[in-house]
Amino acid sequence: MVSGAGRGERAQETREAILDAAERLFAEHGVGDVSNRQIAQAAGQANNFAVGYHFGAKPDLVRAIVRRYTTETEGRRLRMLAALDDSGESGDLRAWISCLVRPATDHLDALGVPCWRARCLAQFDTVPGLRRIVVDESVSTPSMRRTLEGMFRLLPELPEEVHRERSDMSRLLVVHTLAERERALHEGGGTARRSWEATATGLVDALAGLWPAPVTTETG
Amino acid sequence: MVSGAGRGERAQETREAILDAAERLFAEHGVGDVSNRQIAQAAGQANNFAVGYHFGAKPDLVRAIVRRYTTETEGRRLRMLAALDDSGESGDLRAWISCLVRPATDHLDALGVPCWRARCLAQFDTVPGLRRIVVDESVSTPSMRRTLEGMFRLLPELPEEVHRERSDMSRLLVVHTLAERERALHEGGGTARRSWEATATGLVDALAGLWPAPVTTETG
Repeated sequence: MVSGAGRGERAQETREAILDAAERLFAEHGVGDVSNRQIAQAAGQANNFAVGYHFGAKPDLVRAIVRRYTTETEGRRLRMLAALDDSGESGDLRAWISCLVRPATDHLDALGVPCWRARCLAQFDTVPGLRRIVVDESVSTPSMRRTLEGMFRLLPELPEEVHRERSDMSRLLVVHTLAERERALHEGGGTARRSWEATATGLVDALAGLWPAPVTTETG
Repeated sequence: MVSGAGRGERAQETREAILDAAERLFAEHGVGDVSNRQIAQAAGQANNFAVGYHFGAKPDLVRAIVRRYTTETEGRRLRMLAALDDSGESGDLRAWISCLVRPATDHLDALGVPCWRARCLAQFDTVPGLRRIVVDESVSTPSMRRTLEGMFRLLPELPEEVHRERSDMSRLLVVHTLAERERALHEGGGTARRSWEATATGLVDALAGLWPAPVTTETG
């Protein structure tokens, strides 16, 4: 007999295996071209309905993938923000931009190769019906709000709509740059940078130029 | 009897109707969730095999969609580059960045609303198997190469790998920012800018900060 705790652990392992298999298959074949049956089989589940049983329909599975990622990066970002408060560097724009970028790159670094997570998230972000889920789950978390507020305080001359525009641009740039790098690592193509750490440096440099860039006043 | 020229014209009209229908359905439902049969029906074709007959398999259809877009933007960019040569402004970084951005925004502006093209292209860019097609068709066209070379001449201190990195970032930023705006226009959500022209200005401002941003030397 398996104890209640043992059953709970086993269910948790099954859920993780399903999420891992789904990430891989979505990244390899496209989220629209993968069935729950294929995911169950790739996750080593004898029962083809295992995905539905544990997660429900595809949007629920996508939500679980996004949530697993956000939980990780949210924890990392909150720790970085606490350290930033203590450091006396809260007047440094690069330090805030690092809080946007490094929770993601550090997480991907920790996952190792092969990894499909960044490509999955980038794909969800562009596929109708799934994009809403990513936005709901990851855009206005407490740590993201605090980070963007911190940046706004350092750039008070930025009109509010341009602040929003550059927030969106930052998100798009990070999400898709990380997906491109993950793909290149996986396919053996060339990457602009040799590590996730260096990729983060490149993104922080770029965003440190983008955020305070002069705003052309619209005419007409 | 229809003349040979008449048949050719009609075939061309059918092809355009199929491309339009495919763009709309891909943007609305996701490229992996739309069949050739659905596209044929949406294009008003009685024959369910019309898509296969005119374009072949899905990757060929995707290539035709990308190529239609690239043909348009390539023509616009070549004209902008010629004007830039004549203007004596070829020492102005913003003028070169405009050549990256405005062929796309001007084209979308000309298409009017509703439009699905930007979302389609952004989606292809993240879906495995299709991304290669977008890259092959649109990344190293003559006008893109000339534009990036022009920018490189103005930023000679930029290491070559950072130039490549920022080229990739520019492309990702433009592709996905335009798709987000097109989606917001279509769904009636708020947009940061009130026109495609103003969106171009926002992107040029951002990229004019990003490109010359100081490069942190990697250690270790």
